[in-house]
Order: sequence, then C-alpha cells, then structure tokens
Amino acid sequence: MATNRVEIFDTTLRDGEQVPGCKLNTKNKLIIAERLDQLGVDVIEAGFPISSPGDFNSVVEVAKLVKNARVCGLSRAVEKDIKIAAEALQHAKKARIHTGIGTSDSHIKYKFNATRELVLERAVRAVSYAKTFVEDVEFYAEDAGRTDNAFLAQVCEAVVAAGATVLNIPDTTGYCLPEEYGAKIKYLKENVKGIHKATLSCHCHNDLGLATANAIAGVANGARQIECTINGIGERAGNTSLEEVVMIMKQHPTLNLSTGINTPMLYETSQMVSELMGMVVQPNKAIVGANAFAHSSGIHQDGVIKNRETYEIIDPADVGVTASAIVLTARSGRAALAYRAKNIGYELNKLELDKVYEEFLRFADQNKEVQDEDLPNIIKASNL
Amino acid sequence: MATNRVEIFDTTLRDGEQVPGCKLNTKNKLIIAERLDQLGVDVIEAGFPISSPGDFNSVVEVAKLVKNARVCGLSRAVEKDIKIAAEALQHAKKARIHTGIGTSDSHIKYKFNATRELVLERAVRAVSYAKTFVEDVEFYAEDAGRTDNAFLAQVCEAVVAAGATVLNIPDTTGYCLPEEYGAKIKYLKENVKGIHKATLSCHCHNDLGLATANAIAGVANGARQIECTINGIGERAGNTSLEEVVMIMKQHPTLNLSTGINTPMLYETSQMVSELMGMVVQPNKAIVGANAFAHSSGIHQDGVIKNRETYEIIDPADVGVTASAIVLTARSGRAALAYRAKNIGYELNKLELDKVYEEFLRFADQNKEVQDEDLPNIIKASNL
Repeated sequence: MATNRVEIFDTTLRDGEQVPGCKLNTKNKLIIAERLDQLGVDVIEAGFPISSPGDFNSVVEVAKLVKNARVCGLSRAVEKDIKIAAEALQHAKKARIHTGIGTSDSHIKYKFNATRELVLERAVRAVSYAKTFVEDVEFYAEDAGRTDNAFLAQVCEAVVAAGATVLNIPDTTGYCLPEEYGAKIKYLKENVKGIHKATLSCHCHNDLGLATANAIAGVANGARQIECTINGIGERAGNTSLEEVVMIMKQHPTLNLSTGINTPMLYETSQMVSELMGMVVQPNKAIVGANAFAHSSGIHQDGVIKNRETYEIIDPADVGVTASAIVLTARSGRAALAYRAKNIGYELNKLELDKVYEEFLRFADQNKEVQDEDLPNIIKASNL
Repeated sequence: MATNRVEIFDTTLRDGEQVPGCKLNTKNKLIIAERLDQLGVDVIEAGFPISSPGDFNSVVEVAKLVKNARVCGLSRAVEKDIKIAAEALQHAKKARIHTGIGTSDSHIKYKFNATRELVLERAVRAVSYAKTFVEDVEFYAEDAGRTDNAFLAQVCEAVVAAGATVLNIPDTTGYCLPEEYGAKIKYLKENVKGIHKATLSCHCHNDLGLATANAIAGVANGARQIECTINGIGERAGNTSLEEVVMIMKQHPTLNLSTGINTPMLYETSQMVSELMGMVVQPNKAIVGANAFAHSSGIHQDGVIKNRETYEIIDPADVGVTASAIVLTARSGRAALAYRAKNIGYELNKLELDKVYEEFLRFADQNKEVQDEDLPNIIKASNL
C-alpha cells in the first residue's frame, strides 16, 4: 500500500525566528531558506511581512530565491496585513498566504473583546480577501487547542467554503495531551462539511514537552501537514522539531506516512541553524544533539559493539551523523575498553584486559572522560 | 475524588550521569541528592555500585545523607552486582535494589546469546537473591519496548512471584509511540497475575522526542511510577524530563494524577544540575529553559499584557521562575513597546506611540533585541 504523504511546513524563519535574541537578517534568512529547499520541505514560511520593513524585505528575497518549496507569509485577519503579505510574495514560484484569528473563548474575550459571530465573520472575510491575491490560502484558528470543537468545526467549514486550502489547528499554548489533540483532528475530519477540499495541519508548541507527540497524534488522525522548525526552536519552549517528526514517520512503518525530506541533510541543517541563530542545541537533543548517538555506559556499549541495533533504532548515517560514538568513562565496561584499545593498536587478552580495566577505572573515577591518548599510559601503568 | 499518586523515581545520578563527559564526583552527587530529597522525589537512584569504586562510594554516601526518599542502586542480574549494591545501600533509611535483564529477542540473542527460558530463570534468581538483602526490589525488563508482550507478561508474573515490588518497563531505545507504550502497560495491568502486588514503572528514552509523552501514556494506563531525570539528561538523547511529567500531571486535572514534588523548586534544581554537570539547558527547553516564559512576538505580547493566560498555561511562579518576560524585537508590537516604555517612566499617547514605534522598528531591524536602555534614544529620535 502506498504511504500517505505528509507535507512538511517549515516555520524556522517565522515562528522559529520569534526566539528572543535570535532575529535573523535577510542574508541569513536566505542561507537557511536555500538549505530548507534542498532539504525537501514542502512549504517555507518566510516571515510576517507586516511586522517590520526588514521582515518584509526578507520575505521578498526568499520568495525570489526558493526553487521548489512553496513560500508562505503570515498575516493577521486584517486587510492591510494580507495585502502586504501578497505584495511580499509576488515573485514566489508558488505562493501561500497564511491568515487567521484566535477562536478560543479566552482569545475572543481578552484579545478581541468580540463575540464568536464577529470572529467567524472576520475569518471568512480574511480568507476571501486573501483569495483575491493567491489560490493557496491557509487559515489558522489561533488557540485551537483550547477552542470548543463544535465552534472550531463551524469556523473551519466557513473558511473552507470561502476557499481556504489548508486548515491550521494550532495548540498555541502547548497545553494539549496527544490524545486530546488527535481527537480534535479526528473530530474536524468527521464533522466539517467539505473537509476533503482542504488539508488539516498540525501546529504544536512544546510548553509541556509534547509538541512532537501531539503533531504525530494529529497526522495519525488524518492531518496531512505538520508545521515545525529545525531544532524545535520558537517562542517560549519552541515548536515541533522537524527532525523528530520526520524520523518518527520514517522509523515507524506502521504509521504508513512519509515525507519528502532528504534525511541525511538533517544534522548539517541543524548545525547551520544553530550557528546562524546563536541558539545552542543541547547535547541530549533527539536526533541532532551531539550525544544522540553516543554511548557511555558499559551495558550499552557492550550491546552496541556486538550489534548496533541492540541500542540504536536509527542508523546515524540516515540523519547525516558519521558514526555512533563509544565514549569511555567510569561507567564503561571491559568490552568498550578492549574495543577502543584495539582501535589504536592494542590487542588485549582476557587476563591483560582485567588488569588494564582495574587501572582504567582508577583513572576514570578521577576524570569525566577517558581519551584515546590516555590509553597507552593506562596500559603501561597496568604492569602487564 | 482523590487523585492517584504517581511516584517520582529520579535517576539523574545514575542514568542521567551516563551522559558522556558529565560524570559527577561524590561531592557533587551529594549536593544534588540533598536537593532532590528536598524537591520531594520518592526514589533517588544514586548509582551503579559495581561499575567503579568511585560510584560505589557515591552510593554509600548518598544512602547515609538522604532523609526522606528511598535510595536505590542499580545492578545487572548477576550475584556479584546485587551483593555490592546491597553493601553500598546498607546505611540507607529506605533501600531499594534495582536489578534486571534484557528481555527482547534482540537482547537475548545478541547480548546474551541465550534463550527466553534462560533469561526468565536468571531474572527470577536475581530477584530472589536481592530479596535476601532488602524488602524492596525493583526489576527492569531491559528493552521492554521491543519485547513481545506475552513473554514480557510471563517474566513480570515470575518476578512478582519471586517478590519484586516494582516492575520497570523500559523503552530502552526510545522507539515506542505513546499509544504503543500505553497499550503495553495496559496489557501488563490486565494479563499479569498478581500485578496488584507490584507497581508498574515507566522508564522512557528520548531518541525520537517522545520520552515525556510515553511516560504520560504509561501512567494514564495504570503505571504508578515514572523514572526521569532533571532536564531530561541521560545517555544519547536522554530520559524523560522530571519537570515536564510533573507539570503535565499538575496542569491536567482530568488525568487525576498527582506527585509529591514541590514544583517551585524546579527551576533552581534545573540550574544546579546543569551547572554541576556542565550540561547546558537549551533556551527553548520546556518548563525550565531560559525562554520558557519569554514572549517576543507582537501578537503574543499583546495577549499576555491583556491577560497572562491568553498565551501562558503555567504560572511561572509555580516552577520557581520570577516572571514572564516581554522581550522587545522587530516582531514586537505597539502594546509591548508601550508597556516597556511605561515601565521606565514614559507614558506615550496613541499618536506618540505611532511615531516611536516606527523609529523602534528601524532600530530593531538592525538589532536582535532592544533593551530598556535603548528606549530613551529611540524616543528622542522620534521627534515627538
């Protein structure tokens, strides 16, 4: 059976760039956009054109540069925003306008001091207006995660009728549990008239550490687009990590979902974004962290040396990492010590290994990590 | 209805410490253990006593120091390991021995070159032997995530009969999807005879970014202990983050689960562990990252200024963070600018704000972040 294709909507340059202190200039946005295009993302959200003249210009240049991906610009459900977004996108080979409005009661009351009826009307008006500029209009129902499902379905139905091609269902505050988020997508799939004319999209935030799980719950329940960022960067605790959802779909054939991402480019892309934004990737970040394929405990090292798949579910080469690392520490066992010693030319028999291991532990208890260059001294001190 | 109590088993000092290059000496382990005890964790896994003399000593000292939590030591299903663990724990007020063996076909074949029958026998023998030293014995079925459920249930049944008080079901390679992991716990809850005599425990790894979601799926399906680390540190992509699962249970009353964690200590504990291990916490880490409560986009800032709950689901004070931050960048709007200007003594009317905002955007497009001390110059340059 053919797998179902999930579109990857990268918003590193828009929602990702909202990280405090990480604003990108146009030149850097272009470098990243070119790389995302090569990586094979389906949509690049390039910015929020009305927000500042600098960002407007970035969107213009990204739209001119990108060859394959669709280029998207954000707007509020406000005529001026939409007009400026359309202007910024005019040179794109494939353009999408992203517009929308808060639909939860909290947003309606505290942000807009409005009513459900007024919000629904503004949503439809915004989509209709955006359609006068481009064919492809994505609508976001901000705070959909906390929006009553029946009202959300009503809004979705109305904007699809107005021509929306994609329905973005953001868990804006990162509050949903995976089951809840999946159930919301399922509800919309089953209750919105005309839903076959639009693609449901997952846009999740990581405030409780669930952005990846929620997006996967969404596509498992019928959504066919995930909005995400490289390294999961973004406002507050960030967005769904592109590399995580892509590798989950790749490694779990039972999901029957696939993407167009060229996964061996993931690691380098992660490094590039981290450097250009000055945003460190923690060593224990899934898929792209420095330690993602490093083994230091004896039990694990022994297993990996015998058979990589004992402890690794992803071949490092599949995400562009050269090799898994066997790191020597006081938690390492004889197998790892013998393996690393052999790598630098020392073949130890069982008795020798016992002696060297004892000396090794003495040294390792004093040091965080033992390097190859420490091994000859350790072996010498072992009085073989 | 009373909530169901979930025990928090902290393994920062054992599985967390397996991060390459982050080994802790005894002094630092004691500082962290004392803090974990104050934080209110139920169990502190202090180390793997057989692994090295240094680690043995750390477990001895932690066992002497800790006042409230149970102290646990790791061992393989090997007599010598278990004996040394018992020795290291002898001064603990409440001691637990953690022992176990790989149960997946991959582990049985490649690690042990054994059979299911032999592994089952070794598991029972290890638990029985550990019971000769302590009452509280936790059994881990390594690689349970990839272990056939029927065999896993058979192993669990046998070790419970041998006296195991806790059954640790590790997703050792971080491969499971939340639904799968939850279903595994449910299967054991329903198919292991005598399961009421033991507590099921979730031990998840983050290789696909799902460690938090999997642990929550586990407790939603009947597990009553979560094994986790501060900041989610650990081998490869790390373990379930303590702060994330604790706050999910706290913020989601429908789960009907609670812990004994004193949440306002979370942020400081995260900082302490990060410093002592030299492991950076990325700014967009959920709950404890530097940006977890920082808002930089205009839409969000406007919402938060009107009502915090528009964009924040956790009160920062609940995790020990002083306040949410309104960060000024080129993505900020008039509301944030007015708010920050007012904080330093400038009350701007609507017309003034329009002028200053234009000048602000010019400045902000050139700079990553705008500081309070930049505002007087921006206001001066606006020719009010």
